[in-house]
Amino acid sequence: MHFADRLHLQSGASLRDYSLKYETYGTLNADRSNAVLVCHALNASHHVAGVYEGQHRSEGWWDNMIGPGKPLDTNHFFVIGVNNLGSCFGSTGPMHVNPDTGRIYGADFPVVTVEDWVNAQARLLDVLGIETLAAVMGGSLGGMQALSWTLQYPNRVHHAVVVASAPNLTAENIAFNEVARRAIVTDPDFHEGHFYAHGTVPKRGLRIARMIGHITYLSDDVMNEKFGRQLIAATQQAAAPSQVSAGHEAPGAQAYLYSTLEAEFQIESYLRYQGDKFAEYFDANTYLLITRALDYFDPARAFGGDLSRALARATCKFLLVSFTTDWRFAPKRSREIVKALLDNRRDVSYAEIDAPHGHDAFLLDDARYMGVVRSYFNSISSEVAA
Amino acid sequence: MHFADRLHLQSGASLRDYSLKYETYGTLNADRSNAVLVCHALNASHHVAGVYEGQHRSEGWWDNMIGPGKPLDTNHFFVIGVNNLGSCFGSTGPMHVNPDTGRIYGADFPVVTVEDWVNAQARLLDVLGIETLAAVMGGSLGGMQALSWTLQYPNRVHHAVVVASAPNLTAENIAFNEVARRAIVTDPDFHEGHFYAHGTVPKRGLRIARMIGHITYLSDDVMNEKFGRQLIAATQQAAAPSQVSAGHEAPGAQAYLYSTLEAEFQIESYLRYQGDKFAEYFDANTYLLITRALDYFDPARAFGGDLSRALARATCKFLLVSFTTDWRFAPKRSREIVKALLDNRRDVSYAEIDAPHGHDAFLLDDARYMGVVRSYFNSISSEVAA
Repeated sequence: MHFADRLHLQSGASLRDYSLKYETYGTLNADRSNAVLVCHALNASHHVAGVYEGQHRSEGWWDNMIGPGKPLDTNHFFVIGVNNLGSCFGSTGPMHVNPDTGRIYGADFPVVTVEDWVNAQARLLDVLGIETLAAVMGGSLGGMQALSWTLQYPNRVHHAVVVASAPNLTAENIAFNEVARRAIVTDPDFHEGHFYAHGTVPKRGLRIARMIGHITYLSDDVMNEKFGRQLIAATQQAAAPSQVSAGHEAPGAQAYLYSTLEAEFQIESYLRYQGDKFAEYFDANTYLLITRALDYFDPARAFGGDLSRALARATCKFLLVSFTTDWRFAPKRSREIVKALLDNRRDVSYAEIDAPHGHDAFLLDDARYMGVVRSYFNSISSEVAA
Repeated sequence: MHFADRLHLQSGASLRDYSLKYETYGTLNADRSNAVLVCHALNASHHVAGVYEGQHRSEGWWDNMIGPGKPLDTNHFFVIGVNNLGSCFGSTGPMHVNPDTGRIYGADFPVVTVEDWVNAQARLLDVLGIETLAAVMGGSLGGMQALSWTLQYPNRVHHAVVVASAPNLTAENIAFNEVARRAIVTDPDFHEGHFYAHGTVPKRGLRIARMIGHITYLSDDVMNEKFGRQLIAATQQAAAPSQVSAGHEAPGAQAYLYSTLEAEFQIESYLRYQGDKFAEYFDANTYLLITRALDYFDPARAFGGDLSRALARATCKFLLVSFTTDWRFAPKRSREIVKALLDNRRDVSYAEIDAPHGHDAFLLDDARYMGVVRSYFNSISSEVAA
């Protein structure tokens, strides 16, 4: 969807015109009351559910959650996925041409915030003729957008489903984002964000950024369970220097390679693989923009840090979900939102799921998690016309 | 101290000859029974206590712990600090010339393990005429060396003080080390570890490595307390683009810069500063070697993962200390050591200090921590001759 009207951004900058890539699932009912907007996090897109015809393994990123008969049931709801501004999956972003200069934006793409994204999403709904959302839903950074919807457009949202999210980032969260950004920005192939013109991609930096991200998505427990201290397969080790067998090895234990450069442990090759894969398709400037949107989100900021006052504007009903082993957006952060909503006597349900998978749990199947979301949407379903 | 005898390493490689830089504090008593070896962690050296004459701010890294009248009292004990092999503070390391080739070692410096370091330390004690240590002590990686002493030379240690340590690294620990190593190794200035010959230093990689390290040394709580979401001083912001004031800013809140490249939050400038400082003096190959020594340490490995069987060799008495907010080497890891020692009916004291500072707590003043170590050394003091 192309938008010719200038979008004013929170920074004071603006986008003269822009496009948003979106997908819809299910059917909008006659009174347009069954729309659910699903907001994406760092590494995702408008493609929230389903598969593309003839494309193997093209499932949407929340396909276990959204579809016919699924917790967010597209037999009942009209679901909308939108790729956010600044992303690299089709909506206007840093790899596109700046109409004001005729040059690719690169690092000149303006900083976009959660609030800016919500404004752009609201315009898309305007064009689609949807005045009010049955629900807005998201996990992680997507949950921040859902929360922000309830503050920016309180009259346009009946329910908000905020999963594995937080009212702002902690210093540690910002720190991880900053290290990832520095890895990208100091990669000689970054060229101050104008690497497109140089025919390069700062892949080294993107790999490091993704490796750091992956560590924070998983829990210590699940990493130990999945990888522990397992060495890379013995078959690969057979090709190692013969020096290894001459070493004073622990009897019965598989030989170490004794290398600082080779991957030795399974966790190392897993992270390298994830980093390599990511660097092939993700845009470096998008990574900077999206992590910055995370850093900047802080609705309590305009209220002297008082989240209860900040959330007083919200009028809809809420479902909050967190996961016990999520140390990136820990349950206590969700509880801060719950408390602030209860301070305002809002209708809020909260589920703290005892799942081992860390932050990633919000994308994974867990019967209790799926059950909670299913019941919540079932109850919304009874409110909207068929 | 120069050693002309070849040192065989665990990997099967060996060092033909090498030097160890060390310092001593206090006086060795007549029966040579009051020696305490202090082992260092990643970023430290033989300079554990005191100041160098005429050198401002040259305090040893554990100067709050060690010295006259301090918890480890050099009026009673003869304390030895040794720089480990492969380090960059004076002992033989990757920046030195390989006597077999006449070239600087660089990436050819052999992988050294905790066990290798302990063997080298034991040789130093031989030359110093110290058969038995009153105690061996260390924090973090230094604690691993202390633990390994009790297994490799059980008859040469009366006490081991193991602080903020672990019986091995978890997958998450290894993961953080691996990201740091990849940042260094993929820096174009690394030149496969032979950057000395190119007149370069992989500073970008070292900066990222240090930033990651710093995040893991601190607790989420102390980061929030020290930095929170504080923006960089308003004085610096006055120099920011005027565009900022045109933004739709939160009333009463200090303006954001809205930049992905500039440091915006205090935590960012803190990390950048720490990274810059580190990259000026630390050797990149040393970083690889020392993180690998951490990864490889796993005394239970030769016993099918059974730590109790692994620690059966230890005969000395132990003091273990951990810190509640240390998520790098969490208390549960120290408790694994305590349990394995108790399984062997060893004499073990354990203190879990409720300190907010994360892993860094082992280097900081905390009255309870200092008190525990002081009493422990007081009791050792009563065992040794004056």
